[in-house]
Amino acid sequence: MASESEVSNKQIIFKDYVVGFPKESDMEIRTSKILLKVPEDSTGILLKNLYLSCDPYMRSRMSKHDRPTYVTSFQPGSPITGYGVAKVVDSRHPNFKAGDLVWGMTGWEEYTLTTLTDLFFKIEHTDVPLSYYTGLLGMAGMTAYVGFYELGSPKKGDRVYVSAASGAVGQLVGQLAKLTGCYVVGSAGSKDKVDLLKNKFGFDEAFNYKEEEDLDAALRRYFPEGIDIYFENVGGKMLEAVLSNMRNNGRIPVCGMISQYNLVEPEGVHNLFNITTKRIRMEGFIVGDYYHLYPKYLEMILPHIREGKISYVEDVAEGLESAPSALIGLYSGRNVGKQLVVIAQE
Amino acid sequence: MASESEVSNKQIIFKDYVVGFPKESDMEIRTSKILLKVPEDSTGILLKNLYLSCDPYMRSRMSKHDRPTYVTSFQPGSPITGYGVAKVVDSRHPNFKAGDLVWGMTGWEEYTLTTLTDLFFKIEHTDVPLSYYTGLLGMAGMTAYVGFYELGSPKKGDRVYVSAASGAVGQLVGQLAKLTGCYVVGSAGSKDKVDLLKNKFGFDEAFNYKEEEDLDAALRRYFPEGIDIYFENVGGKMLEAVLSNMRNNGRIPVCGMISQYNLVEPEGVHNLFNITTKRIRMEGFIVGDYYHLYPKYLEMILPHIREGKISYVEDVAEGLESAPSALIGLYSGRNVGKQLVVIAQE
Repeated sequence: MASESEVSNKQIIFKDYVVGFPKESDMEIRTSKILLKVPEDSTGILLKNLYLSCDPYMRSRMSKHDRPTYVTSFQPGSPITGYGVAKVVDSRHPNFKAGDLVWGMTGWEEYTLTTLTDLFFKIEHTDVPLSYYTGLLGMAGMTAYVGFYELGSPKKGDRVYVSAASGAVGQLVGQLAKLTGCYVVGSAGSKDKVDLLKNKFGFDEAFNYKEEEDLDAALRRYFPEGIDIYFENVGGKMLEAVLSNMRNNGRIPVCGMISQYNLVEPEGVHNLFNITTKRIRMEGFIVGDYYHLYPKYLEMILPHIREGKISYVEDVAEGLESAPSALIGLYSGRNVGKQLVVIAQE
Repeated sequence: MASESEVSNKQIIFKDYVVGFPKESDMEIRTSKILLKVPEDSTGILLKNLYLSCDPYMRSRMSKHDRPTYVTSFQPGSPITGYGVAKVVDSRHPNFKAGDLVWGMTGWEEYTLTTLTDLFFKIEHTDVPLSYYTGLLGMAGMTAYVGFYELGSPKKGDRVYVSAASGAVGQLVGQLAKLTGCYVVGSAGSKDKVDLLKNKFGFDEAFNYKEEEDLDAALRRYFPEGIDIYFENVGGKMLEAVLSNMRNNGRIPVCGMISQYNLVEPEGVHNLFNITTKRIRMEGFIVGDYYHLYPKYLEMILPHIREGKISYVEDVAEGLESAPSALIGLYSGRNVGKQLVVIAQE
């Protein structure tokens, strides 16, 4: 049952719109009070947040946009919002009851009161780590699944390249590619990450892009016959090198371009004419358009997780206070694996 | 019947690989001799060329390529080859007989002896201008048809933008869009061309891109609600402006990027992340992959031409000698409408 006591509620507040690289000081910690009960005139739910997800797309929410875009900006002076795993403390919505575990768009705070219940999925399977619902079994997992299968049109034997391959999305893309019988190469920004790709996630090959002076030559080395599917996570110079190495009728699901998010002037890509000459399909997607496939995804992925056929590496920051640093770390590639923040065990 | 007499054969010879803008002096006229008969040991055909087509993609054939690409380079010292309309003078191939009219990949010369008969279509309908088979009823027409319908996925009410809109492909794309019930805007590089778009081809709006200091603002003016389909013919800065003005789930069939072909260092496109945020599908194609649809295309387009519902403007250069200048003129936009060369009436 819901407690009626007022408790303190630590929050991560977004201070103001950001230009260039975000800093921890773009956020601040504030402690307010919250009543652990949904007001009588509301149909909302009151959540105790357990895990928060740090995702690259959040950079876009820190900017002020002069035209409408795929995300809304954070509200200066209000808590950051993002995907997370939470426990329902109180509910006046018929679909949720106290004790339910959910994942969805919550606040960067200890407790969140929200009426946006459509943004939450009930967690039905708890024999797998609960934190997975911030990534593998949440938005990032769905992103890998949709981008690879729906847009990538993979078939056995395809040559697949994944950038940012040890990240929340990339590590799963590589494993899905292996399950499909593809040859898969990943790149990442440190030796540790490259080791993970080869030894933990089963990529056929992996390389540290920071150690390659000539990305074009590196890709030619790993793909002497070219790339069928490039799962695009980074953009810029990497995309340019990839376009030179795509095969005819190649596919490029465009998941993100993290290398560009903090540049005031993004890099130019100069060889787009390859799209014509190689009949390339380059296609962007927003995972939110595909959540109707979530049950199908769970049905596919859960058995693989239970059988140990899918690995997932998480980089867990401890405590709400560590969330700003964890988020910022994404943009310099500090995280190894899926970045999340644990703020309560239950 | 074939004449056995040897006749003189004027040819346009490709001198050497080109870097940057091509010049007339990259080609030269040579006169050789040819016997108007297919040799007995050959299964080829001997053609009298009537019309030659000047097409933007030919620039790529003037370059030396360090990797295989969608076209083969012209052979220095040999005649230019390209699409054209010709009459069969002699044949040792079962599918062709003297007197047949054909269109396909012929030589820039008065007479062509070839065994590559797969590269020719027989012309069955001669109640329309024969020259149309260099464009509207040939490669350019098929390009417009395939790019617009197969890749553009148009539906009634879609907002369509066409660059290089008065060219061989663009003028048809605009008219197909109108037939489909779309709102269509074209851009071109002169007042005459803009007038054609509005008054001859029925575009809803048209503008001279050379008179727009801010392409982004120009597109915003014509597409206050954004662009659903951009038929890409030019690349570079125009593509960048378009990406900023695309609507969610927009499609960009990438037919060509003529503004970039002669640049040693093509322009960079800096805002590709729009592909993700707007879920854009950008897809290249080579018309040669779709020639199986040619009968279906003819069935659709011929009635429209006969009923005067499709207009087609040609820019006709007279005589083989004028071919080099006509070809070069494409890259500065000198042609008004489909550029072709007439070398014989029949």
